[in-house]
Amino acid sequence: MTEEIADWVAVDWGTSNLRVWVIGADGAVIANPASDRGMAVLDSDEFEPALRRLISAYLPESGYVPVIVCGMAGARQGWLEAPYVPVPCAAPGAGQAVCPETADPRLDVAILPGVLQTSPPDVMRGEETQIAGYLRDNPDFDGVLCLPGTHAKWVHVSAREIVSFRTFMTGELFALMSEQSVLRHSLTEEGWDNDAFLAAVEDVMTAPHRLGARLFTLRAASLLEGTASATTRAQVSGMLLGLEIAGARDYWLGRDIVLIGTPKLTGLYRAALEAQGAAVRETDGAELALAGLRSAYEEMTR
Amino acid sequence: MTEEIADWVAVDWGTSNLRVWVIGADGAVIANPASDRGMAVLDSDEFEPALRRLISAYLPESGYVPVIVCGMAGARQGWLEAPYVPVPCAAPGAGQAVCPETADPRLDVAILPGVLQTSPPDVMRGEETQIAGYLRDNPDFDGVLCLPGTHAKWVHVSAREIVSFRTFMTGELFALMSEQSVLRHSLTEEGWDNDAFLAAVEDVMTAPHRLGARLFTLRAASLLEGTASATTRAQVSGMLLGLEIAGARDYWLGRDIVLIGTPKLTGLYRAALEAQGAAVRETDGAELALAGLRSAYEEMTR
Repeated sequence: MTEEIADWVAVDWGTSNLRVWVIGADGAVIANPASDRGMAVLDSDEFEPALRRLISAYLPESGYVPVIVCGMAGARQGWLEAPYVPVPCAAPGAGQAVCPETADPRLDVAILPGVLQTSPPDVMRGEETQIAGYLRDNPDFDGVLCLPGTHAKWVHVSAREIVSFRTFMTGELFALMSEQSVLRHSLTEEGWDNDAFLAAVEDVMTAPHRLGARLFTLRAASLLEGTASATTRAQVSGMLLGLEIAGARDYWLGRDIVLIGTPKLTGLYRAALEAQGAAVRETDGAELALAGLRSAYEEMTR
Repeated sequence: MTEEIADWVAVDWGTSNLRVWVIGADGAVIANPASDRGMAVLDSDEFEPALRRLISAYLPESGYVPVIVCGMAGARQGWLEAPYVPVPCAAPGAGQAVCPETADPRLDVAILPGVLQTSPPDVMRGEETQIAGYLRDNPDFDGVLCLPGTHAKWVHVSAREIVSFRTFMTGELFALMSEQSVLRHSLTEEGWDNDAFLAAVEDVMTAPHRLGARLFTLRAASLLEGTASATTRAQVSGMLLGLEIAGARDYWLGRDIVLIGTPKLTGLYRAALEAQGAAVRETDGAELALAGLRSAYEEMTR
């Protein structure tokens, strides 16, 4: 029994996770291994071994295999720094990649850069490749891509370029509030209350200055009135998302909006935005990084 | 050598700390022991031993010693629940205290209740006793007491009663953001930039909806421009305090304001409020809990 041999390898290397697609000669995905060896737990000399552990079975005896990497492997604390490309710019491709030396001569690694904005200061690493993936199938898109997550990105795209973008720490704030603040005592059970979510979004969008006071109100309501966990969770989420949508208004108002991410997250954003009268589409982001890495590979081999 | 004997004992039992004042027959403080045996780390049967460890040297051979306790010892997860008293109310006194049974017959413990508000829901435990302490020396105060801290309280006081109050999680949010979020990587050094602090307060007060976007901007500015830790720390603090002061506007606008707390914290609030044209006084809160406990003791022995 012989394993199939990789034609090339696509890698999305995040802060916490490593996702790999091993691509065969016909362009199909042979294997899709993953690990928790994200950038945050690796020193620069540990990236190659972490990658080899996932792909060694698919490497040829001799010759070389292109490996296209996006994400935090290109950060200063990553494998090798791939300096940010400034907006306005097309999503960076193979021509702007950096190439770390490898101990294994069969690996030909190219790490794609992230994108920066100088005013106001902002950065992305990884999302630009998902954007490239989206534009691969939608080259004429003109509007706003919103990528929810730990650090949500709102990205204005026009004429195949990233024009400007804005990052919100909403996902990280929700995790800190719900897992580590005093509110965690009111979030001990699962569940979701969608009406409470939409009311909280609306409340903070109408009066963002109330957010500071409203958060502790949720804890007190849970103590005094026994508010259900499901309601409190939806309210915390809605308040934080309401602050984001209020702060992103100039991005979404009157624009074509596409939400890219897991269906669970994009569904929440969709509900909140549609309540504001915005027209929204959703796209599952799971395979967009691979699509963007494919574009970079094709550019490299053209 | 004999230790002095306690006439009574004052206790401020918080979530994280236990502070005790042992009071002699002449009303003077004989000893002021403290420990980190806060409510959060104690089961209900561990409160008495934790207290005895600090005061046993000052107890008489026979007879009994009143012990007046405020704070989280009266919470549901504390020593014995002391049900909240609803506003409007005077700061609760000995008449509303609950008395846990003790293994040591010399201890006569009274735990003071906290205060609740039903609309909007809010609670305090401990601050009401500091307020009683402030009113002991300022019985005719009519205005707003602001007690900064993990959970800052803005309290409208009139005719010796707590009329209404509002809690902000600003201190807890700052700790989470600066120690656990991605911003911690930009806060690796000490220091403080007061101009940056005041500008950040003003910025968020003017446009609270920007807070969500501005937080990640600080991280990006640190990455791209090498902004100093001192500046970023002051900006995070200023943005969160700006949100609080914006959300407390109906409390402080046009009212007499007294800030109660550590000089470091009240100084920040003072600077931020004076920039809004508010007239503010500061009082060190360290001994106000003791003053409030004294009032309760005197009421009990009258």
